[in-house]
Amino acid sequence: MSDQNPVFIPGPTNIPDRVRHAMNVQTRDHRSPDFVKTFAPVLEDCKRVFGTEAGQVITFPSTGTGGWEAAICNTLSAGDTVLIARYGMFSHRWIDMCQRHDLHVEVIECPWGSGAPADLFRERLNKDSAHKIKAVLVTHNETATGVLSDIGAVRKAMNTTSHPAMLFVDCVSSLGSMPFKMDAWGVDIAIAGSQKGFMLTTGMAILAASPKALAAIETAQLPRTYFDFRDMMAANKNGGFPYTPPLQLIYGLKESLTMLFDEGLDNVYARHFRLAEGVRQAVAAWGFKLCANAPELYSHSVSAIYVPEGFDSNKLTDHAFNAYGVSFGIGLGEMNGKAFRIGHLGSLTEVMVLSGLAAIEMAMADLDYPITLGSGVAAAQEYFRKTAAANIG
Amino acid sequence: MSDQNPVFIPGPTNIPDRVRHAMNVQTRDHRSPDFVKTFAPVLEDCKRVFGTEAGQVITFPSTGTGGWEAAICNTLSAGDTVLIARYGMFSHRWIDMCQRHDLHVEVIECPWGSGAPADLFRERLNKDSAHKIKAVLVTHNETATGVLSDIGAVRKAMNTTSHPAMLFVDCVSSLGSMPFKMDAWGVDIAIAGSQKGFMLTTGMAILAASPKALAAIETAQLPRTYFDFRDMMAANKNGGFPYTPPLQLIYGLKESLTMLFDEGLDNVYARHFRLAEGVRQAVAAWGFKLCANAPELYSHSVSAIYVPEGFDSNKLTDHAFNAYGVSFGIGLGEMNGKAFRIGHLGSLTEVMVLSGLAAIEMAMADLDYPITLGSGVAAAQEYFRKTAAANIG
Amino acid sequence: MSDQNPVFIPGPTNIPDRVRHAMNVQTRDHRSPDFVKTFAPVLEDCKRVFGTEAGQVITFPSTGTGGWEAAICNTLSAGDTVLIARYGMFSHRWIDMCQRHDLHVEVIECPWGSGAPADLFRERLNKDSAHKIKAVLVTHNETATGVLSDIGAVRKAMNTTSHPAMLFVDCVSSLGSMPFKMDAWGVDIAIAGSQKGFMLTTGMAILAASPKALAAIETAQLPRTYFDFRDMMAANKNGGFPYTPPLQLIYGLKESLTMLFDEGLDNVYARHFRLAEGVRQAVAAWGFKLCANAPELYSHSVSAIYVPEGFDSNKLTDHAFNAYGVSFGIGLGEMNGKAFRIGHLGSLTEVMVLSGLAAIEMAMADLDYPITLGSGVAAAQEYFRKTAAANIG
Amino acid sequence: MSDQNPVFIPGPTNIPDRVRHAMNVQTRDHRSPDFVKTFAPVLEDCKRVFGTEAGQVITFPSTGTGGWEAAICNTLSAGDTVLIARYGMFSHRWIDMCQRHDLHVEVIECPWGSGAPADLFRERLNKDSAHKIKAVLVTHNETATGVLSDIGAVRKAMNTTSHPAMLFVDCVSSLGSMPFKMDAWGVDIAIAGSQKGFMLTTGMAILAASPKALAAIETAQLPRTYFDFRDMMAANKNGGFPYTPPLQLIYGLKESLTMLFDEGLDNVYARHFRLAEGVRQAVAAWGFKLCANAPELYSHSVSAIYVPEGFDSNKLTDHAFNAYGVSFGIGLGEMNGKAFRIGHLGSLTEVMVLSGLAAIEMAMADLDYPITLGSGVAAAQEYFRKTAAANIG
Repeated sequence: MSDQNPVFIPGPTNIPDRVRHAMNVQTRDHRSPDFVKTFAPVLEDCKRVFGTEAGQVITFPSTGTGGWEAAICNTLSAGDTVLIARYGMFSHRWIDMCQRHDLHVEVIECPWGSGAPADLFRERLNKDSAHKIKAVLVTHNETATGVLSDIGAVRKAMNTTSHPAMLFVDCVSSLGSMPFKMDAWGVDIAIAGSQKGFMLTTGMAILAASPKALAAIETAQLPRTYFDFRDMMAANKNGGFPYTPPLQLIYGLKESLTMLFDEGLDNVYARHFRLAEGVRQAVAAWGFKLCANAPELYSHSVSAIYVPEGFDSNKLTDHAFNAYGVSFGIGLGEMNGKAFRIGHLGSLTEVMVLSGLAAIEMAMADLDYPITLGSGVAAAQEYFRKTAAANIG
Repeated sequence: MSDQNPVFIPGPTNIPDRVRHAMNVQTRDHRSPDFVKTFAPVLEDCKRVFGTEAGQVITFPSTGTGGWEAAICNTLSAGDTVLIARYGMFSHRWIDMCQRHDLHVEVIECPWGSGAPADLFRERLNKDSAHKIKAVLVTHNETATGVLSDIGAVRKAMNTTSHPAMLFVDCVSSLGSMPFKMDAWGVDIAIAGSQKGFMLTTGMAILAASPKALAAIETAQLPRTYFDFRDMMAANKNGGFPYTPPLQLIYGLKESLTMLFDEGLDNVYARHFRLAEGVRQAVAAWGFKLCANAPELYSHSVSAIYVPEGFDSNKLTDHAFNAYGVSFGIGLGEMNGKAFRIGHLGSLTEVMVLSGLAAIEMAMADLDYPITLGSGVAAAQEYFRKTAAANIG
Repeated sequence: MSDQNPVFIPGPTNIPDRVRHAMNVQTRDHRSPDFVKTFAPVLEDCKRVFGTEAGQVITFPSTGTGGWEAAICNTLSAGDTVLIARYGMFSHRWIDMCQRHDLHVEVIECPWGSGAPADLFRERLNKDSAHKIKAVLVTHNETATGVLSDIGAVRKAMNTTSHPAMLFVDCVSSLGSMPFKMDAWGVDIAIAGSQKGFMLTTGMAILAASPKALAAIETAQLPRTYFDFRDMMAANKNGGFPYTPPLQLIYGLKESLTMLFDEGLDNVYARHFRLAEGVRQAVAAWGFKLCANAPELYSHSVSAIYVPEGFDSNKLTDHAFNAYGVSFGIGLGEMNGKAFRIGHLGSLTEVMVLSGLAAIEMAMADLDYPITLGSGVAAAQEYFRKTAAANIG
Repeated sequence: MSDQNPVFIPGPTNIPDRVRHAMNVQTRDHRSPDFVKTFAPVLEDCKRVFGTEAGQVITFPSTGTGGWEAAICNTLSAGDTVLIARYGMFSHRWIDMCQRHDLHVEVIECPWGSGAPADLFRERLNKDSAHKIKAVLVTHNETATGVLSDIGAVRKAMNTTSHPAMLFVDCVSSLGSMPFKMDAWGVDIAIAGSQKGFMLTTGMAILAASPKALAAIETAQLPRTYFDFRDMMAANKNGGFPYTPPLQLIYGLKESLTMLFDEGLDNVYARHFRLAEGVRQAVAAWGFKLCANAPELYSHSVSAIYVPEGFDSNKLTDHAFNAYGVSFGIGLGEMNGKAFRIGHLGSLTEVMVLSGLAAIEMAMADLDYPITLGSGVAAAQEYFRKTAAANIG
């Protein structure tokens, strides 16, 4: 009965039937006119979700991590300097990847739970009069800590320095769930994946690149073939791929875009805010603390929640799975054992969220957590009620 | 997003993916050896669920109502007398069907909320020294009132009278969710459907007939062709159907039987009891009353719940659907407006049940019901926790 | 690998993925507004396929046989006389059903391979000055012999007699594949099923009834409940069913209607004619004979083909299945052993038809039939080529 | 109706329903025990298909091209020399990839239509006394020309030189369709994909690496993160992935392995040989020529076929698609316009092959090719008949 309960991991997300059907197409010829006709508008429609008109959308059959690798390989050369702040597992992993690609990484260490440090970026760029820093790499939504950073502020800080560095943003767990404004924020490469806000199975990196990023291709020396932007863009221009395309994911993406646009992107974002806020009401009712340091940093796609001192969050998530068949995100990196995560992104309703809260409460009670059964659920119910369209409208 | 929340109607039930896949087979030749090899064991395996060795399983492409019609047409003649107690919508509809088939129906009127009146049956049969009553028709699980009747007690009462009447039982909403013991209880025809405990789509009546019922075919004069037992049994003997079989439902039934047997029928029944009991704990916490008159009548597949005086249960179920996208059963017949129903049968987990309780609580709060948000959820959580395998085992 | 080859039985037909997806919906509340909104237009849209504006469409969860039973039970009384010509297995079974429902059946025996005998009907009706004959029952497309009858001619013959008998037509294997003009032809009840031209799984009878037929309900005395038109129409009026509806089939029917209308009904009929004609070219190339007596009787949804003297058609169909995994229709009734049938209805392409022809040729060669391998395929190819849109257009 | 006809492109292949269902699972937690329990045996079972016990199977969410990149990045360093023979599009693309990764590529130019030149490899390796050549890269099955090379012979030739070069083999379009003996042939890295013999959707590279290849990781300097063997193997050891795994593809792979083993690998290979031979009989009947230079080079998963002088193969494949809805492979590279390709790999029956032959014959006739309609079909029918299990067994 394992497929009946929703999952509350912060991606991959629960897949709606419409998308499952769309991905469940029989093999078709990817060189046929039908595919060509399908694919081009999908790329175009993705732009709306990225918030870009000037940018170009590029996809690869890979995960978001592959998208990161594509971003740096196509724009940088061994020895180039990049600037990254480490404030969670995913910024950490980006640092690691850059180092393994022989980039020089200037790391700004920040406490986990904080967001992208616009001021420190500005400071550091100001010192770089030689413009050795080629790019600033930022994680928009730190999935490990449930922290949403202010990308516009980062760009503003960069702009005050008149530094030419590019701005690369990991929006894997934010795109399609929270507003993203690539053009307005001056993002040069944005990197997303299929299995979060797009509600698809894992297997497609979805990127958008600014004209400036595309220009950087010419000088970039890092070796790449599979992830080469040029090959992909050249083939895309004719409706094709430089190798076999993940046809089913592309048909699925078409359907997921249709669903997002049918609901309306603003409504999608409002729904995610509401679901997240319900979860936060429950956390407050339990008397627990979010990993995110401040309300303005709260992610609306994932909440990372500290368990009380003396409790082991891994035991909690294990028990929730074993006793009640519900999956939550474990604490990652330095939060392992100290925090668990509730993913509330993708195709989700408030009723599903309440089932997750009810499940984790039972697991907490089983492990003698100091909480009152039903307290978090009631707080979320109260919030959901007040904000239900039927009750407001 | 309408397919994301579970349904809490008392059937059709939430369909597990395994069964959806099994029903989603391409057209195959129903005269091929593959179908023949599949179909015979399915009929045989159904016997275990009915609790019969002596009986014969017969299916029709129809709903349970068609199954009822098959039961009477194959065993009775116009003018025959049958004995039925009316204590809910489904016993009422059975009475109506018999009358429309020119049977003489002796009706025992019972209050809704009560179960099959074994004593009154005995009394009535005792008076029928001419043995004009050919059959007693009983609804095992009254889906309208959430009442489970004691079929064994009915048969015992009948036996004390040495009356030869047959015993027909509607187990549409009980079979596969609660124990059924056709042979032990002396049931002559048991009538079930595909869309309840079997977790399939609607479209197949599944019956079991005792040797005595099969013998009655010979004298039965009611006209029938589509629902003729003889045609069906003759064709089944050769692995076929007298007309086109509902192949996909039969493949689905094979899978659903596999799931039931994999879980173990006793475990399936225990799971339904536990889910039902959780719901009842919530009802008690709200201070509400079940329609079933006494604990020994509580159904474990559906709970019919009175709303407080002065409230309209139809507004409640409408609002739950409109505001939160969750479907509950409306009050039927004389309970319309006064009660709503929570279906908790088929493929369901305690986490799904909690989501239903949370949803109806929100709807009740929205309509100013005198309940505390989260109270029913908490009561159910507490019960589910105490009885969770991981916590007991 | 049994699901890879198309089936060539004359229904159920190969199900296109669009329809499979549409039928593969999770359980939804059939009392919800969504279902109501879906169901009413589906009934309305079916009228276009029946060719009726005056008629009313009524569906039952059953096979076409159940549809027949519904037709007679709702309009006739025990002892009523009906007129039927027997010229195949399905007209034969209709006679049997009427007799088992205590109707008096006037049978006109015709050779299998012939069609509805308009002249003999006129003759017989002329003699019935007492108007004892209440209905003439005709099989539009005899699936057993591959004979398509001229319903318009039957009605014209009836009209010349000024006899008030109703005209009931079995169009199970023609509707949606060949033109049907209920109003123009003066049909009173037309009976179809889900698993032929509608490309769905088996499980829904789809009928259309004229105002005259609906008026006959009032006097009809045959017992019915499950198949009662009045209950169904009353419930349908409110968007519901008198019992649990086959929700998935109704969603599937919506999609199949969409597909039929997208292609255009005239194009659908033209496609079936073309596929059938290709098969007939192959039959001619083999030097074989169709069961249908004359070209104007040729069905465009199924071809029944005599095997040469001395050969056993059952061995042929068995061998085709066992050796090549392809299902054809066996010879039914008096054609058993003498003929096999190729179903060419529903969702089918010329390329699929060619694979069927190639398969049966191999089976025939294996059994030493006097044919040249590839000869039938070549004849069909030649015809398909000449008539391919790309080559004509 | 585009999904009804099989595709005859040389991959992605027609997906059987069992695999479609297996890939159509709802999101599950990839950190749950269920996934861990599923994934490890899948990797282990892949070894049987690769023919290795000593090797280790490694998968990536990517296409086969990504698998190539993984192979070179994990074992080689910029400036290393590799030896490749160019005899088709895929060997050509491998050369290009190596060059773009700053490897020095010694290219042996061979005519398209020939296979891996064991003698020339030996010759070249003999000259390399400094052992600068680190690896020989060979395409087992050239999908562009339909040429199957003798990998055992290549290894034998290498061994006679006592040269320590590794042997990397692209078996993307052969694995699972034709025998592959990694250990016996001394292959160091074999690279396959999900969408050919494994009958899955595109999106997973499946590699096997010998202990020698794994040892080369230590010294390899090419940058890699996404495709890093070490990260993947370390995570796999714990049942996980270094990033989000393509869960649905892994469940699909489990099912496809089950299907392959149920049929028996030897039977799978025999089936592919038989289907290929049927196609070749048709080609001979048409009087056409295969691109493969000699019978011992014939691929059993794809046939590349020259069109007669004066005809344009692109027009042929376009017309087959536009007029009959059937997809064939176009001629690639220098064969573009001169040849078309019939893919006959994956889940395919002889009846499906015949439909493809019938379709292309019609297209050829439409374009005035000098062929007799039905001739190729008849030749293939004759061969399939003689070799049908039912006729032999």
